[in-house]
Amino acid sequence: MSLDANTSGLFPIAPTPFHPDGRLDEGSIDILVERYLAAGANGVTVLGIMGEAPKLEPDESLQIAARFIDRMGRLPVIIGVSAPGFAAMRSLARSVMDQGAAGVMIAPLPSLRTDDQITGYYRQAVEAIGTDIPFVIQDYPLTLTVQMTPKVIRQIIQENPSCVMLKHEDWPGLEKISALRGFQKDGSLRPISILTGNGGLFLDFEMERGVDGAMKGYAFPEMLGDVVRLQKAGKRDEAHNLFDAHLPLLRYEQQQGVGLAVRKYVLMRRGFIASDTQRKPAAALSAAARAEVDYLLARLALRDARARL
Amino acid sequence: MSLDANTSGLFPIAPTPFHPDGRLDEGSIDILVERYLAAGANGVTVLGIMGEAPKLEPDESLQIAARFIDRMGRLPVIIGVSAPGFAAMRSLARSVMDQGAAGVMIAPLPSLRTDDQITGYYRQAVEAIGTDIPFVIQDYPLTLTVQMTPKVIRQIIQENPSCVMLKHEDWPGLEKISALRGFQKDGSLRPISILTGNGGLFLDFEMERGVDGAMKGYAFPEMLGDVVRLQKAGKRDEAHNLFDAHLPLLRYEQQQGVGLAVRKYVLMRRGFIASDTQRKPAAALSAAARAEVDYLLARLALRDARARL
Amino acid sequence: MSLDANTSGLFPIAPTPFHPDGRLDEGSIDILVERYLAAGANGVTVLGIMGEAPKLEPDESLQIAARFIDRMGRLPVIIGVSAPGFAAMRSLARSVMDQGAAGVMIAPLPSLRTDDQITGYYRQAVEAIGTDIPFVIQDYPLTLTVQMTPKVIRQIIQENPSCVMLKHEDWPGLEKISALRGFQKDGSLRPISILTGNGGLFLDFEMERGVDGAMKGYAFPEMLGDVVRLQKAGKRDEAHNLFDAHLPLLRYEQQQGVGLAVRKYVLMRRGFIASDTQRKPAAALSAAARAEVDYLLARLALRDARARL
Amino acid sequence: MSLDANTSGLFPIAPTPFHPDGRLDEGSIDILVERYLAAGANGVTVLGIMGEAPKLEPDESLQIAARFIDRMGRLPVIIGVSAPGFAAMRSLARSVMDQGAAGVMIAPLPSLRTDDQITGYYRQAVEAIGTDIPFVIQDYPLTLTVQMTPKVIRQIIQENPSCVMLKHEDWPGLEKISALRGFQKDGSLRPISILTGNGGLFLDFEMERGVDGAMKGYAFPEMLGDVVRLQKAGKRDEAHNLFDAHLPLLRYEQQQGVGLAVRKYVLMRRGFIASDTQRKPAAALSAAARAEVDYLLARLALRDARARL
Repeated sequence: MSLDANTSGLFPIAPTPFHPDGRLDEGSIDILVERYLAAGANGVTVLGIMGEAPKLEPDESLQIAARFIDRMGRLPVIIGVSAPGFAAMRSLARSVMDQGAAGVMIAPLPSLRTDDQITGYYRQAVEAIGTDIPFVIQDYPLTLTVQMTPKVIRQIIQENPSCVMLKHEDWPGLEKISALRGFQKDGSLRPISILTGNGGLFLDFEMERGVDGAMKGYAFPEMLGDVVRLQKAGKRDEAHNLFDAHLPLLRYEQQQGVGLAVRKYVLMRRGFIASDTQRKPAAALSAAARAEVDYLLARLALRDARARL
Repeated sequence: MSLDANTSGLFPIAPTPFHPDGRLDEGSIDILVERYLAAGANGVTVLGIMGEAPKLEPDESLQIAARFIDRMGRLPVIIGVSAPGFAAMRSLARSVMDQGAAGVMIAPLPSLRTDDQITGYYRQAVEAIGTDIPFVIQDYPLTLTVQMTPKVIRQIIQENPSCVMLKHEDWPGLEKISALRGFQKDGSLRPISILTGNGGLFLDFEMERGVDGAMKGYAFPEMLGDVVRLQKAGKRDEAHNLFDAHLPLLRYEQQQGVGLAVRKYVLMRRGFIASDTQRKPAAALSAAARAEVDYLLARLALRDARARL
Repeated sequence: MSLDANTSGLFPIAPTPFHPDGRLDEGSIDILVERYLAAGANGVTVLGIMGEAPKLEPDESLQIAARFIDRMGRLPVIIGVSAPGFAAMRSLARSVMDQGAAGVMIAPLPSLRTDDQITGYYRQAVEAIGTDIPFVIQDYPLTLTVQMTPKVIRQIIQENPSCVMLKHEDWPGLEKISALRGFQKDGSLRPISILTGNGGLFLDFEMERGVDGAMKGYAFPEMLGDVVRLQKAGKRDEAHNLFDAHLPLLRYEQQQGVGLAVRKYVLMRRGFIASDTQRKPAAALSAAARAEVDYLLARLALRDARARL
Repeated sequence: MSLDANTSGLFPIAPTPFHPDGRLDEGSIDILVERYLAAGANGVTVLGIMGEAPKLEPDESLQIAARFIDRMGRLPVIIGVSAPGFAAMRSLARSVMDQGAAGVMIAPLPSLRTDDQITGYYRQAVEAIGTDIPFVIQDYPLTLTVQMTPKVIRQIIQENPSCVMLKHEDWPGLEKISALRGFQKDGSLRPISILTGNGGLFLDFEMERGVDGAMKGYAFPEMLGDVVRLQKAGKRDEAHNLFDAHLPLLRYEQQQGVGLAVRKYVLMRRGFIASDTQRKPAAALSAAARAEVDYLLARLALRDARARL
């Protein structure tokens, strides 16, 4: 299925499952996809920062993409193709589209600074991968150190017709969403899908500011999907109640570096993946941290149920 | 009152109140102190980043410090004296100690990178202000971009007997607390007070990892004080219940740049200060953001009450 | 004398002379000015990064500015007023203009990233200091980490009529000069003076690209002035010959951190200042480094003389 | 031939030659190697930052490495294997060693900050590639933003017996060389080869501080080799005379971003490679810049000859 400016809903960011010895665990991909579908996912995003993409060999990346595409059936799969050079980006992008991916996601190089450098980079990237591949802008200043103003994002979208989506991960970022939606209202920006990432710490209000859904790696994707649906149905208080029940854990996951360890641990405890192994370099979870997550999970079970009453 | 390695409890980080035209509002300092004392504060910290210190003229800094010191009575006042050069740091530090401050807080210069640069900087700072002034290390990588390992912090403490406290604001930072307390257990670090800042987003677990209290600017200081007390009394679940009730707003405040606008707005709504004016350069609060904060405050009132049942 | 868009020639960046014990050495200011005038200076710039401005107390800054203004007579003195907040910037700017300064120099805050942030900052700065004070943009990415494109510089100039000069210190920066002069040719930019800094490492070609002169701290200001004059007179080879004779020392001075120590040492050896003392924090010169500078000075004497034959 | 702590002399950093359409130009590799050997090279370094390594596909990297190894005969070839993840690093390192490389070069990840992070990274890297592969530390703060103190470099060397060389590219860096050689004298550091990079802007004095040779990409490698030989022979003035003759061009090459364009242009003009094509993203050379380089080359011819008289 293709990706376009109307794409919405829940797109989990998938981790890459490994066996305890570091080999790819393809069986866990199958289970992960099953669980995502059960949680109401409308698609999935693979090989993002959370997918440990830079730690994979090129053949592995293709193998992982193929497996997800196969298991997701007709649902769209977005593949992260960010790379230091355009040769590798083009190669990966063309290969995964041939495999059946719905589109690709491109983050800016961390060295980009000025508005012109950023817009120029996206022009070159599109020239490299080809104008026929739908792509997603990843706007993640906290990790990438690249700051894109709403005007810069608008320029990228207007200059590149194959841009169909913004993965919004600015922090703080609520005003940015309002500014972009305002551009659409005043006619200076064509329609664009905005899914929001950034750990989901502001999903409750991001929905109210006008995003189309969530693209996040939080280990309870069903909560993300439900908050999206509740907000779209105008059930504001219910959405906040459910969201707030998860906020203590969501917040705990939002620790730079150690966050992925927390997520993989929770996903493993929930049976989404067989092992929480990460490839090096990686931050491990201490015994104290694991106990804290266990405590949060115990509290969460009760509070999630109560919020859904 | 003096500051030492046994200092604990609640030290609110005070904002600097301004009149709508940008002049200092000293009357609001008096009210602010009253409210802090009513909230159970054990001291206060003034002229920190949240206090808009770099936007003040030297005379104003002294004026603000004097007012807080006077109103706090016998309770300790910590003054932020971070500066690009040691001449200004020394001048401010000596002046506020003469006024009756309990100690000073020193952040590292943002340009410091290696372990040796950081420890060398603190040696020079102590030489500049004098070895008789108790000081607090401010460890705030997210804003200052300086990363101090536990070993570096230990070295600063061991090399400088006048260091009595760490303001812990690393993010993530739970393991750092455990590492420092571990150093004390193995005898390689002398006792030191650790108060935790960083917006309070992890105060619940930071207490369990061994900090002595909170040094934060959250607009409900009484919650911070109560969580500290509950945790010290071993009432873990009660502490988390109260903390979680505030987490949606606490999280909202934790937006780089706009966070201070949120705090001043809430403090104004609560009657702690007369106006939420900031000096330029400053990020303003949009109408949408104000409405979001109002919504969170309405929910908070109910949930805080329920958590205290 | 006032500063305007026609200002040109040699503006040495003055160091701040200290006695060995760290006190200001005002007597050395008098000698320094004498030497600058003898070297053909058309003005001087004070309290820049090289002037150790952040290490001074506010009263000292005013004292230094006053002394330079007094001694320079009718020649223009530019005062660096960069500050973390606008209150201090305004206070210093108004004071030095009252003392008789010709204009002020403003560097962007290191935290500025996007084009809009940068142009917004200059609008706010001009609002703060007043629109009646001629000011110089300092564009120094290597130290300040702020990258301004030619378009951003053009916008600052067009939005702020009181902007009269660019201190160009981008590295590499030759194309930036050509771009700005191109904007003037195509009518999209009003005339502006461009003096070039950045240690002078590219002064030879910067003159050919269209700058109006040099604003640098190199310890042989007469060479800078002579290269400017030779290039303006169309004596290209002579200009390069003289410049190349100094390049080994010029290059040696261009070491981040230790560069100021080299300059003050050479200025002291040449009798421009009485002591090469810097205030802390400062990088010192090792015995080996001093010997290297001595060796370069010995070679320079011969080569400068030969280049002038 | 193997790489060890006694390796010395001239190791040019090779660019990767491309055809005008962006394909690899293997024929130019053959010519390049011939010229390097004629210039007195003792080895060569391939796939460094200057080699546009991040813009290559994995197969191309292996192809380039194989070609250089084949043509260099018994002389050592060092391959840059820096990568965001250890899987790709290990894969490339093992492959090129099988092909006959003499060793590999590893740069730290740009995100590393504290001393412990840096030393930990090298331990993990060595664990990944295997302890049997001789490796070179690349210390290049200006581009990589990672600052390693002499103590950190010593720790890496002492902890990893397979570390045989430091590529020194700190700026400023003269004191670092003296500090490391001092560690060897006081017995706290085992012998290590130090070759110096950083564009060669300080090669004259770096030799006097104790480096073993040059690992640089300057387009006149014969000058680098001759300066190394002259300094080793104690001919200080002759070394400086030759070096100074090249300094105007060397300085011109040292422009971040555009530097590689200058180098490839000069290498093309000298017949070392057939085309100066770079892969995107790349900074191009303007007509004005090309004319400036031509002017410098014309002057250089005369001055190099005179220095060798």
